[in-house]
Amino acid sequence: MAMPPSTHSRCLLPLFLGLFQGALLLFFALFVAYDEASAQAEDTILVANQVYSTFPFFQDIQVMLVVGLGLLLTFLPRYGFSALTHNFLLLIFSVQWALVLQGLLHHFHHGQIHLDLHKLLISEFAAVTVLISVGAILGRASPCQLLVMAICEIPVYLTSEWVIVTCLGVQDVGGTITIHVFSCYFGLGVSKGLFRATQQPLHPKETPTSHSDLMSLVGTLILWVFWPSFVAVLCQPGNAQHRAILNTLLAMNASAITTVVASSLLERDGRLSPSHLQNGSLAGGVAIGVVADMSMPPVAALALGSLSAVVCVLGFRFLAPLLGRKLTFHDQCGIHNLHGLPGILGAAASVVAVLVASKDTSGSHSFQLSPVGGNASEVVEGQWGGRGGGGQALCQAAGLAVAVGASLLAGLLTGAALRLPCLARPPERLCFDDSLYFKIQDQAESPGPDSSAEEGALALKEQV
Amino acid sequence: MAMPPSTHSRCLLPLFLGLFQGALLLFFALFVAYDEASAQAEDTILVANQVYSTFPFFQDIQVMLVVGLGLLLTFLPRYGFSALTHNFLLLIFSVQWALVLQGLLHHFHHGQIHLDLHKLLISEFAAVTVLISVGAILGRASPCQLLVMAICEIPVYLTSEWVIVTCLGVQDVGGTITIHVFSCYFGLGVSKGLFRATQQPLHPKETPTSHSDLMSLVGTLILWVFWPSFVAVLCQPGNAQHRAILNTLLAMNASAITTVVASSLLERDGRLSPSHLQNGSLAGGVAIGVVADMSMPPVAALALGSLSAVVCVLGFRFLAPLLGRKLTFHDQCGIHNLHGLPGILGAAASVVAVLVASKDTSGSHSFQLSPVGGNASEVVEGQWGGRGGGGQALCQAAGLAVAVGASLLAGLLTGAALRLPCLARPPERLCFDDSLYFKIQDQAESPGPDSSAEEGALALKEQV
Amino acid sequence: MAMPPSTHSRCLLPLFLGLFQGALLLFFALFVAYDEASAQAEDTILVANQVYSTFPFFQDIQVMLVVGLGLLLTFLPRYGFSALTHNFLLLIFSVQWALVLQGLLHHFHHGQIHLDLHKLLISEFAAVTVLISVGAILGRASPCQLLVMAICEIPVYLTSEWVIVTCLGVQDVGGTITIHVFSCYFGLGVSKGLFRATQQPLHPKETPTSHSDLMSLVGTLILWVFWPSFVAVLCQPGNAQHRAILNTLLAMNASAITTVVASSLLERDGRLSPSHLQNGSLAGGVAIGVVADMSMPPVAALALGSLSAVVCVLGFRFLAPLLGRKLTFHDQCGIHNLHGLPGILGAAASVVAVLVASKDTSGSHSFQLSPVGGNASEVVEGQWGGRGGGGQALCQAAGLAVAVGASLLAGLLTGAALRLPCLARPPERLCFDDSLYFKIQDQAESPGPDSSAEEGALALKEQV
Repeated sequence: MAMPPSTHSRCLLPLFLGLFQGALLLFFALFVAYDEASAQAEDTILVANQVYSTFPFFQDIQVMLVVGLGLLLTFLPRYGFSALTHNFLLLIFSVQWALVLQGLLHHFHHGQIHLDLHKLLISEFAAVTVLISVGAILGRASPCQLLVMAICEIPVYLTSEWVIVTCLGVQDVGGTITIHVFSCYFGLGVSKGLFRATQQPLHPKETPTSHSDLMSLVGTLILWVFWPSFVAVLCQPGNAQHRAILNTLLAMNASAITTVVASSLLERDGRLSPSHLQNGSLAGGVAIGVVADMSMPPVAALALGSLSAVVCVLGFRFLAPLLGRKLTFHDQCGIHNLHGLPGILGAAASVVAVLVASKDTSGSHSFQLSPVGGNASEVVEGQWGGRGGGGQALCQAAGLAVAVGASLLAGLLTGAALRLPCLARPPERLCFDDSLYFKIQDQAESPGPDSSAEEGALALKEQV
Repeated sequence: MAMPPSTHSRCLLPLFLGLFQGALLLFFALFVAYDEASAQAEDTILVANQVYSTFPFFQDIQVMLVVGLGLLLTFLPRYGFSALTHNFLLLIFSVQWALVLQGLLHHFHHGQIHLDLHKLLISEFAAVTVLISVGAILGRASPCQLLVMAICEIPVYLTSEWVIVTCLGVQDVGGTITIHVFSCYFGLGVSKGLFRATQQPLHPKETPTSHSDLMSLVGTLILWVFWPSFVAVLCQPGNAQHRAILNTLLAMNASAITTVVASSLLERDGRLSPSHLQNGSLAGGVAIGVVADMSMPPVAALALGSLSAVVCVLGFRFLAPLLGRKLTFHDQCGIHNLHGLPGILGAAASVVAVLVASKDTSGSHSFQLSPVGGNASEVVEGQWGGRGGGGQALCQAAGLAVAVGASLLAGLLTGAALRLPCLARPPERLCFDDSLYFKIQDQAESPGPDSSAEEGALALKEQV
Repeated sequence: MAMPPSTHSRCLLPLFLGLFQGALLLFFALFVAYDEASAQAEDTILVANQVYSTFPFFQDIQVMLVVGLGLLLTFLPRYGFSALTHNFLLLIFSVQWALVLQGLLHHFHHGQIHLDLHKLLISEFAAVTVLISVGAILGRASPCQLLVMAICEIPVYLTSEWVIVTCLGVQDVGGTITIHVFSCYFGLGVSKGLFRATQQPLHPKETPTSHSDLMSLVGTLILWVFWPSFVAVLCQPGNAQHRAILNTLLAMNASAITTVVASSLLERDGRLSPSHLQNGSLAGGVAIGVVADMSMPPVAALALGSLSAVVCVLGFRFLAPLLGRKLTFHDQCGIHNLHGLPGILGAAASVVAVLVASKDTSGSHSFQLSPVGGNASEVVEGQWGGRGGGGQALCQAAGLAVAVGASLLAGLLTGAALRLPCLARPPERLCFDDSLYFKIQDQAESPGPDSSAEEGALALKEQV
């Protein structure tokens, strides 16, 4: 009698992770050292100050990704433990994988890679792409499939980020284009490659309960609170960072209020949809990233936040069902609505911001922060070197195109790879169920047939 | 056939919020700019240091208000999603509204309002008053009513705070008088004005479950942990801030322990009441705010923390039922016990502290930090300028009187305004129910008739 | 008719806590003052910088202990409120008790104890030992028993820490030996002394539900995120602190991944056990503490994290049942697997690290951070003064022996003291039940006979 597919998958996971962790140990042993400044007093103060200025931001981002994003994904009522765990494992796995690849690509000096907090932070940013992309197939993929996806996505991200930021010189301090847009279309590509043209039916375990919706909202609120740290951590200290924090706060305020307006108006009886609130409140943070540190009036941040919430809610209400039915794009968590549409909006806003700033400068009068120009006139910081505003605007647009195109293509290929039978996609009836991967008590609140018995019966049927 | 009142209310909410957000956009476009220091190197370092010293405190306070306070309010088992969402929306709405009003009142230079992190923080403090006052009517008011309340409360708070701090020169770094006492009596006034002399019957959905009590306790713990940041953020850096942090920690330690003692002693069978614990543990933080940065021995913070927990528990056990029955003051979350009584206690303590400090100084021997005076003798920081200790003590008392009087009066008027039929108070049977405002699954753990069907039937009945 | 034992215990608790808090007030009034620097400008800046560099770490640790550890203990489905509350109360109680004892022992100058944030932090570390030890008897002991345990454990800890760190000169910046190993064996000793040779049967309320497992995992994740703050807060600022943060991050990454591998491999059907994940992910943090700030290659942190996860999972799978059956050591939360075994592993690693470092130095070539020695050669920081590496290694081992021996002995005596009838251990049927100590609604999800009626009946039976 053959092994049922789910057990097979469960055996693959430790093998896979064990090999990876072993290889990582070897790599670290051979190549990685700490980047220690000399023991002189001034260097000690410098390192201490770097720790004090970076570490609180770093911790905020860790809370966002591990606790906030994890809880956001627990809206699937019988899949909460899996969602939290898979999110956590994928983060750690991807950070380590990104650390290795980035070390090999960028930081190899004299046969050694020097590790420091800043490099860990950069790897954390890379790992975020995986956590977002997973949202497209959450609950319908095995942990092994998710790990293979992470393995494929990180190098594609690093390449795409290198093209967009280093080659094209795109300004994107908060990762709107490089992270959010990229990971959204990568995730959709994977979903398309994995599920092909078969439309995924609504699963009975997919509907949130009041309790899972509450936990998910707590996750949203944690993300909402710490989002400014994510956008501002890599900014130039001083005015640019201060501005990035304020712009992000304004945009997120605006998008939370606008989400309520848009969601209420779209429903016949005016009742708010929890998923709109859980996602729309964060849309402003996605969109603002690309322009957060630019010199622009605060009203622009408010407007961008509002607009991004509108496109997010419209996406949930109209575009997502359309994509699902017509193009059979399966998007479990609605990442296209939260990361795709607001990301594209943000990229468009950055084009406008660059053009406006350049016109203000070239018009031989200094950049005015607001129509009532008093003493606030300010020279645009010379961040676009010899390149004109039009050129920079073109680059921003090109960056967006690269992010969408490369990610979609790479995602499709990755999704096709995930169809390999050895990766053991869970059978339909066992999707969205914690008990497939965890020794967990069956949910008291929705009693039903014992799921492990069910699984056994199903496994038998599937062996042909 | 007329529209049922709840649907009517739901249509009003987006209209209302949409208009507000539109007006805000206009206001920002016309008047608000960033307060950017010049691009010189020393200014950049200055701004960077301000961000590093303020931002961690700011984030702590955001977590308190969005996650901690939100979770504390989820003790209503079928109203958790609404409580969390309304708290969140009211915070954002009130911060923006306070930003506008404060800009108009204080920060208008050359036709522009300069936005920075410090002003956002000040607006956040203003918004806290709304979040506290809401506790008096939580679950029995529509979102529109809450927004109208926020609109009325913020300007009253700003005026009262200006009178208390600027005119009377009251010392209140942690907002005990200006925020906690003010918002408590404002909330009670609103409740009285809204419900008049009708006593609110106990609602079947009002009783916490073990699970909602647990979530609420998590909220308490988050508030408890971050409270020192709230009290100390606006202190003078250095000794005063250090002292404020320590005093707050001591007071909150003492109040948590004393709550357990008081609550156990008051119950016949010695079992602790969850609501005592959820509120009493925080009472010390409310009371200590007004004296946190003053030069006083640590034992005073401990004693104040203990006393405030005692008055909080006594309030829950004896005063609140009395106020409810005799004066028909409805106080859903017990804000009078957590914010009113400990706030008054703190104000009284500040009178004593000022008198003691002045007596020590005027007695021509320097202020002794402790009875066993060794090297700890210390001159009182010249914070009360030319005013004697008696004068300052009188001012503290006058500040308390202003806070209680103004807030109660303004609250009553606001409550009366909330009776406007267009604001659509939810019908009794649909109070404390998430499904009135959210497309949320009915709670599996307390099955009953489908609440939207129920609502429809009720709405029909109510149309006469 | 005599008083039923549980009511008796409930009367004892407020008496006990009240007396303690009263004595604390007296102590503070007589002896404690703030440690205020003079009012000169440079001192103010110094204090301000100390606050800014310590306070964020301090808050992280508070979140860990109050929210993270509290939630981790809520895996007992009907005991969540009690676990959260007892953890919170014990923390506060122990911090204050440690403050008093440490003040008396170390900081008594001129008849006064000067309080500052650093001393509070040190007391917080002492309190952690109590929170860990409680895990051995959680749910089967009354609050009074837990408080008596705290009273006994803190002075033993302070003595043992003084012997290990001050007398033996053991390097242990993250408290692996002094805190984790010590508190684990103290807890096991208490458990043995309390329950003697009677094996505790599996209680029907002991089995986690899917929801309690989820909440517990959230606690794990919060602990996981903030652990680096705990390990690094007392490090030398600069390189040592930076290294401690990075080492802890690496070790915790490795242990999370390795836990999944080990747990999957050990189960026949490959499904992960929630308790493995909840504990194993943190094992790396326990083990790394003792070597976190030493100069060692990053691979060592990875390897130590992996190994500690392996011993933790093996402990859960094989050693714990053995200890339970053969030696009747009852260990409710598996503290031996999370704190004991990884702690011993960490201590062993510190012996190796010291030996390797000394060999590198004595061999008259400077310490190489990695086999591919480029420019990373570095002189070992002269932290072991005149003592050779072998001597230091011996001291580390001796420190471990002291921690295990002293704690086990003191724990056994404490456990025997907890058998005093006046401390009122809860009867077996009322273990793991919130309703014994709290006025809490019975759990809707596991209906049964009303527990307070049940308790009365039981109490009657027990009176003979």
